[in-house]
Amino acid sequence: MPNENSTAKPVDSLVVARFSGISTFMRLPYVPDGHGVEIGVVGVPFDFPTNRGGTRHGPSQVREMSRLIRRYPSSGGESPFDQCAVADMGDAPFNPLNPQSAVEDTSAFFAELAGRGITPVACGGDHAVSYFVLRGIVRDGPIGFVQFDAHPDTSEELYGDRYNHGTLLTRGVQEGLIDPKRTVSIGLRGTRFSRQDRDFNVEHGMRVIDFDEFEKLGRDGVIAEIRRVVGDGPCYITFDIDALDSAFVPGTGSPEPGGLTMRDAQVVLRGLAGLNVVGADMCEVSPPLDPQGITALNGANLLFELLCITAPAVSRRRSK
Amino acid sequence: MPNENSTAKPVDSLVVARFSGISTFMRLPYVPDGHGVEIGVVGVPFDFPTNRGGTRHGPSQVREMSRLIRRYPSSGGESPFDQCAVADMGDAPFNPLNPQSAVEDTSAFFAELAGRGITPVACGGDHAVSYFVLRGIVRDGPIGFVQFDAHPDTSEELYGDRYNHGTLLTRGVQEGLIDPKRTVSIGLRGTRFSRQDRDFNVEHGMRVIDFDEFEKLGRDGVIAEIRRVVGDGPCYITFDIDALDSAFVPGTGSPEPGGLTMRDAQVVLRGLAGLNVVGADMCEVSPPLDPQGITALNGANLLFELLCITAPAVSRRRSK
Amino acid sequence: MPNENSTAKPVDSLVVARFSGISTFMRLPYVPDGHGVEIGVVGVPFDFPTNRGGTRHGPSQVREMSRLIRRYPSSGGESPFDQCAVADMGDAPFNPLNPQSAVEDTSAFFAELAGRGITPVACGGDHAVSYFVLRGIVRDGPIGFVQFDAHPDTSEELYGDRYNHGTLLTRGVQEGLIDPKRTVSIGLRGTRFSRQDRDFNVEHGMRVIDFDEFEKLGRDGVIAEIRRVVGDGPCYITFDIDALDSAFVPGTGSPEPGGLTMRDAQVVLRGLAGLNVVGADMCEVSPPLDPQGITALNGANLLFELLCITAPAVSRRRSK
Amino acid sequence: MPNENSTAKPVDSLVVARFSGISTFMRLPYVPDGHGVEIGVVGVPFDFPTNRGGTRHGPSQVREMSRLIRRYPSSGGESPFDQCAVADMGDAPFNPLNPQSAVEDTSAFFAELAGRGITPVACGGDHAVSYFVLRGIVRDGPIGFVQFDAHPDTSEELYGDRYNHGTLLTRGVQEGLIDPKRTVSIGLRGTRFSRQDRDFNVEHGMRVIDFDEFEKLGRDGVIAEIRRVVGDGPCYITFDIDALDSAFVPGTGSPEPGGLTMRDAQVVLRGLAGLNVVGADMCEVSPPLDPQGITALNGANLLFELLCITAPAVSRRRSK
Amino acid sequence: MPNENSTAKPVDSLVVARFSGISTFMRLPYVPDGHGVEIGVVGVPFDFPTNRGGTRHGPSQVREMSRLIRRYPSSGGESPFDQCAVADMGDAPFNPLNPQSAVEDTSAFFAELAGRGITPVACGGDHAVSYFVLRGIVRDGPIGFVQFDAHPDTSEELYGDRYNHGTLLTRGVQEGLIDPKRTVSIGLRGTRFSRQDRDFNVEHGMRVIDFDEFEKLGRDGVIAEIRRVVGDGPCYITFDIDALDSAFVPGTGSPEPGGLTMRDAQVVLRGLAGLNVVGADMCEVSPPLDPQGITALNGANLLFELLCITAPAVSRRRSK
Amino acid sequence: MPNENSTAKPVDSLVVARFSGISTFMRLPYVPDGHGVEIGVVGVPFDFPTNRGGTRHGPSQVREMSRLIRRYPSSGGESPFDQCAVADMGDAPFNPLNPQSAVEDTSAFFAELAGRGITPVACGGDHAVSYFVLRGIVRDGPIGFVQFDAHPDTSEELYGDRYNHGTLLTRGVQEGLIDPKRTVSIGLRGTRFSRQDRDFNVEHGMRVIDFDEFEKLGRDGVIAEIRRVVGDGPCYITFDIDALDSAFVPGTGSPEPGGLTMRDAQVVLRGLAGLNVVGADMCEVSPPLDPQGITALNGANLLFELLCITAPAVSRRRSK
Repeated sequence: MPNENSTAKPVDSLVVARFSGISTFMRLPYVPDGHGVEIGVVGVPFDFPTNRGGTRHGPSQVREMSRLIRRYPSSGGESPFDQCAVADMGDAPFNPLNPQSAVEDTSAFFAELAGRGITPVACGGDHAVSYFVLRGIVRDGPIGFVQFDAHPDTSEELYGDRYNHGTLLTRGVQEGLIDPKRTVSIGLRGTRFSRQDRDFNVEHGMRVIDFDEFEKLGRDGVIAEIRRVVGDGPCYITFDIDALDSAFVPGTGSPEPGGLTMRDAQVVLRGLAGLNVVGADMCEVSPPLDPQGITALNGANLLFELLCITAPAVSRRRSK
Repeated sequence: MPNENSTAKPVDSLVVARFSGISTFMRLPYVPDGHGVEIGVVGVPFDFPTNRGGTRHGPSQVREMSRLIRRYPSSGGESPFDQCAVADMGDAPFNPLNPQSAVEDTSAFFAELAGRGITPVACGGDHAVSYFVLRGIVRDGPIGFVQFDAHPDTSEELYGDRYNHGTLLTRGVQEGLIDPKRTVSIGLRGTRFSRQDRDFNVEHGMRVIDFDEFEKLGRDGVIAEIRRVVGDGPCYITFDIDALDSAFVPGTGSPEPGGLTMRDAQVVLRGLAGLNVVGADMCEVSPPLDPQGITALNGANLLFELLCITAPAVSRRRSK
Repeated sequence: MPNENSTAKPVDSLVVARFSGISTFMRLPYVPDGHGVEIGVVGVPFDFPTNRGGTRHGPSQVREMSRLIRRYPSSGGESPFDQCAVADMGDAPFNPLNPQSAVEDTSAFFAELAGRGITPVACGGDHAVSYFVLRGIVRDGPIGFVQFDAHPDTSEELYGDRYNHGTLLTRGVQEGLIDPKRTVSIGLRGTRFSRQDRDFNVEHGMRVIDFDEFEKLGRDGVIAEIRRVVGDGPCYITFDIDALDSAFVPGTGSPEPGGLTMRDAQVVLRGLAGLNVVGADMCEVSPPLDPQGITALNGANLLFELLCITAPAVSRRRSK
Repeated sequence: MPNENSTAKPVDSLVVARFSGISTFMRLPYVPDGHGVEIGVVGVPFDFPTNRGGTRHGPSQVREMSRLIRRYPSSGGESPFDQCAVADMGDAPFNPLNPQSAVEDTSAFFAELAGRGITPVACGGDHAVSYFVLRGIVRDGPIGFVQFDAHPDTSEELYGDRYNHGTLLTRGVQEGLIDPKRTVSIGLRGTRFSRQDRDFNVEHGMRVIDFDEFEKLGRDGVIAEIRRVVGDGPCYITFDIDALDSAFVPGTGSPEPGGLTMRDAQVVLRGLAGLNVVGADMCEVSPPLDPQGITALNGANLLFELLCITAPAVSRRRSK
Repeated sequence: MPNENSTAKPVDSLVVARFSGISTFMRLPYVPDGHGVEIGVVGVPFDFPTNRGGTRHGPSQVREMSRLIRRYPSSGGESPFDQCAVADMGDAPFNPLNPQSAVEDTSAFFAELAGRGITPVACGGDHAVSYFVLRGIVRDGPIGFVQFDAHPDTSEELYGDRYNHGTLLTRGVQEGLIDPKRTVSIGLRGTRFSRQDRDFNVEHGMRVIDFDEFEKLGRDGVIAEIRRVVGDGPCYITFDIDALDSAFVPGTGSPEPGGLTMRDAQVVLRGLAGLNVVGADMCEVSPPLDPQGITALNGANLLFELLCITAPAVSRRRSK
Repeated sequence: MPNENSTAKPVDSLVVARFSGISTFMRLPYVPDGHGVEIGVVGVPFDFPTNRGGTRHGPSQVREMSRLIRRYPSSGGESPFDQCAVADMGDAPFNPLNPQSAVEDTSAFFAELAGRGITPVACGGDHAVSYFVLRGIVRDGPIGFVQFDAHPDTSEELYGDRYNHGTLLTRGVQEGLIDPKRTVSIGLRGTRFSRQDRDFNVEHGMRVIDFDEFEKLGRDGVIAEIRRVVGDGPCYITFDIDALDSAFVPGTGSPEPGGLTMRDAQVVLRGLAGLNVVGADMCEVSPPLDPQGITALNGANLLFELLCITAPAVSRRRSK
């Protein structure tokens, strides 16, 4: 069944110059009320004051740099905008001075989206954002979780705080949002706080493909392993931009050298086509640390790759 | 008569954090069709490839930096948003590869606005933008013209081209858009192409307050002189950001040291309250030359000052 | 009576090159336990996630840029290091993820300093830092308060939060730390959240010298007025770096054009010699927004000016 | 036969410090009239105002960064300056405000060079520059064309304009300058305007090695394929700097992640030694987007690699 | 008597776009051998490794930014290029790793210029450059000296070294190059190494107009005082860019807040017309600390102002 | 035998936020007198004025960026801080204006360390620093030398100077500090001053693994070859940051494209575990050329990798 909203397309750069017009993601229609939307691109400009911050400005700069992205994927295949009604829904609302209510407010926002059948592709903000989205959209038991990241984010708490970018997977598993057996973390590396940094992952049977193993498996092997772990059930994909080598992402809070190239990321993400994606996000772009915008450009491209995986999944679910 | 659209206000930074939401000017409502709008903030992302360019990205960055501006003026007086229905109407459309059609397209856009009773406050783009707006809005004979600028912009042509940022006043006068006797240029200074640089101004009886005279008159004297020259008739105000000393505007194409401070600009603009403003613009902010955004911040503040002069003029005209 | 610790001096740049050695403020001795210290330079790397942040990195960059400052004041007069035992005591400890406990922790730190007779010269962090220090050091009733700032910081609350950079004076007055009759705020300007922005100041009889009045009074008039309001009693001086025109401080969260020059600030601060200063701070330098460090350089110079006022006050109190 | 002008060498960095002297390419002699020159390094500071521009400043910054390059190639082999008389001939002249005459003027300039037996190695400017050079130097039927690029540049027109960086190959083929059967485009990737983006290439039998195939073939396979397609006839090599992964070239108008590394480029270019090169260029370095100059540094190094391929070709033709 | 070389003019920006062509100062002819030159603009890319360096790259960036300067002065008066034969002579040669021989080599270079009747307008490099020039050009006893600077540069030595940017005036006076009674230092301010920082000036009867006095005298008073001290005899003018407030010159080694504005500098320099200038320089622009080039732009403008004073002096001497 | 000083650890980022506290390397204890220290991290802020400099500011910025490094290695293995007493000893003292005495002073400093049994891990400064350290610590005949670098540093002299970053290995071999047969240089590449650039290496039997061979051998092959050449005897490891591809290190004086990735460096360095390291350094980070600090971040990570190799070597020597 064709989608009646399929006329909602990004502005065509061959008709209106890229520098022109209001900054929405890829200059998509701005539909804050979500009317007729199947996939909502949503900013979540939230960041905790732990160290080098500024990701609260991420959605704005990612939108700006996304002007450079064209509507069709690199493969020459179908555009996600031909498959689904996609719109920029603006930013999720919350109180920046009250992290506790921010958790509630943003979760409620995504729950409402889920209730209306809108699949979110979110743009952080810091990595706590994934938890916010999951809390909103997971209704029928834990889902699969594909995490690109330099860090495990499996602390029990951080400075005594339980809801933040370092405890994302811990809370997700403990609260029944994430299925640890269907979770895979790709790209982990870098110095560790302690020798226990990955114990939580091991104890819960979560699959970790650290960067040493990433190189051993090769991109095809990584793709196969992700698909094996996650299977056909509903899953969520999160891309913490620091999964990339720090040379590609100077503008993030905790840059780690020795990681994925953008090419690695692109190839692996394209290999995930067909997963039953029910939500996705890209996080941790910090504009104040990225005056030339190259980190945001990579983030915008990754958001588009996530859209290219999510759109057919939404289309398939619609057809059922 | 109260304005029925007066509920159209910028997002309140005390309710929604400044970093949140789509970038419109001061986070005003985005009303591309102009329905119910009295003052339309319009971007004109046009720049000629003469030297250090990039002002085509100006509207986008000025919108971004305008998040920092609050709704009430420094004086504590009435907000322009309480006086008029103001909206961000997005960018004027044109073909970036055809300067000739760009002149026509943008002029037509502003002519349509004028026809619908919408007063434009434009954001360049380079200084040719003023000419585009004037061509659109001037219908009943030449109007007064208040120009803040380091350069006279009174060349006959530039590299053989007749419509550009260097010929703005020449064309404006020759085509009956600008009344030279009601024109005043404030802040001129800097090295000159030739000893004839200001001959056009002299020949047509245009008032020039170069920066030497600016200092002699003092701000109050400058204000009085502008008011004297322009009088009560309809007038247009243009602020080329390079009127400011280059220390305030590193991000512009032709920065000139030794000019106005932002304080000078603010005080003089506030002194122009009561002029019968029928349009205004701020031009020449170039984001690629301004990675920290300080030029755009100044530009955004000046746009707000222009709004504060324009809104009561619109209100007065509505009341007649 | 000479001070036995007076041998504690900054590293002499004529002996050890400025780029050499650990970054303490002006390369002062690093004395974290405060032993023998009379004036403690203390970093308070605290910032709230309200908008453009990053002042948590302020103390580190201010220390780095302070390498450029020489030991003797511009006047050629006595060095503060000849008058008192000054040391860099490092940063006040607190939990960055718990603003509530941060208030308690930092206040307790400064209270301990006060109990040991150490006068603090603090480096923010955001402007909430002044409140933290005041809570620690005020013991015998409200004190005088000299505030250089673009913004009044007299909100009742911000996003429902009562302790932050926007409520500094409100809480200070309400909790009996600041004497509103001996308070003077210099440099206020810029757009306002509402027409009520300065009502608190008026209601409590606090003296506001906004920038319009600053220019009318002239620097000498401003100095005289500050001295008149504050009188001889104990007082605190806080310098929010955004009191300066934004051209001087690109690297701050809420830059406001049209304000003080560094020269204005230097002359007025030098005119405050003789005040009975019991604490001082400089706040709101944000390194991520200031890649060339020019804001931090100004901040470091202002901290030195504050030291030059504080040292003789400490010396006078010691002599009594 | 030795070349009588072979004494024309870059300034030796072991004799005159690199930071010293006028900026010519590698501090070569500046010979604007081309007297005695066999290979002329020529800047073409032309860019169209389509989106992120600024490549008009490319030649100047590439010259500046080329101070870092030494006279002998990495291999330790012969220097191009020992093989040919190479000089910096300055910039091709044209009217920046008239794209139509710019095409004519620059083409005429290169035609004159060709007439005098000077082989051009050009530095853009945007990628339209290749077309300008080809129009000038191709006299005896279409030549082979080796294109390193992220984008095919095979649009029929752009915003209605037929001569620009997006139509380079279309015009080149249509006007008999480029032999499509002897054309190979290396490194194509990234999102597409439409599903027809590469139809022109296919229809005309042009060989495309997109980045997917680049990785499959490996560098040696790519070299072999380029040599097979181009053969022994005269050919032109153009390197659009955005062929490189965006991490290597933040300072270009349309950066694309997921592309060649500089190592890839160096190895493949070195593998092209022996081709019958009759002209070459490197384009799309934009200094305003590259404040640290790292893009220009890569561009300068690539220009030197092009010189190392071109010099022996010139030498061989001279010997015939 | 007309000057036969008066055809040597900067490239006209109305004919050849500013971004085009090799970077010489204002795109003047490049005449390394000085043939027919009356005023030679000469770079001296020398800097000592004392603290924040990089001024060795100053001449190159000042040349680049000088593209923005037009040929006629702000006053509309005669162009220096109509009065004298001015050329860019490139950089003075020296060994960067041997400060001792650098002194000799550069002095010899300027001595040769002087011997041939060429008046130098030099561009540093650090402030030691003034000493190098003076050593070369002073032949008939000490000359007058006009110094714009934040620092006195009257140390006896620095880290045991006698020839550097901190000992310029000391050596100049001791070696009979500078007449202390005809010396005036304008703009001194900032923290001091010791209370003896200005003793040398006092002891030798050198006139110091520190910034406190600068404000008291006003610009006209300063001009009058400079003219009184220097008189009609031959004199040298040096402008250390840090005389300007640090907001105008982020890119210098020892930025000092609270100094001259560019306007102050322009007005005072223009007031020095008629002095018998036999040489001049502008120093201490450091490009690595100035990625946006705004410091170099100011430096280039000041060099032009120096040219405007020097050219009539040369013309007058020619006419005698 | 356990080390009694093993309580000396970096500040734990899980307890004290990373942005807090004085900048020492990884926030290690600052122990300038070296009491109880086994491995001293020492800054050597020395750089010669040859071209793009600024590495004198390297130690300070590397310390600042090292806040991001956690205490345990990527492998999850033992922390170097559990194996040895490590401290930041500040910077080696020397006179920046006298290169000759700087050689003596720094060498003496490291000799004293060696005499007290403290193993140095140094942070440059430019690459001459390795020579300074070697002169201090080599007592019993030449030692093995592992050099990561783009350039051979085997000139006989540079501009007539014998002790600098270009003559490091020449002097080291000639003075019996470095054993050429146990020397291996990894990563050499880039344009050459002359065809003789590597003759010294060949003549003395030094092993060169240039980047072409690096790729051929692969990382494991490189590791094996380094271990074969160096053997079990005492050795020194130096990492010139320009061994990395310039995309990873924009902030260095002589960036060379086409080199190691950070991943290459990490894997190879980790493969050197077990070498008998008696000293190590990382050099050539230049903060003025690296405003976002990404070069310094890589340098800090490499210093940590060097610590991870050095600590077990020190531990093994202690146990004997």
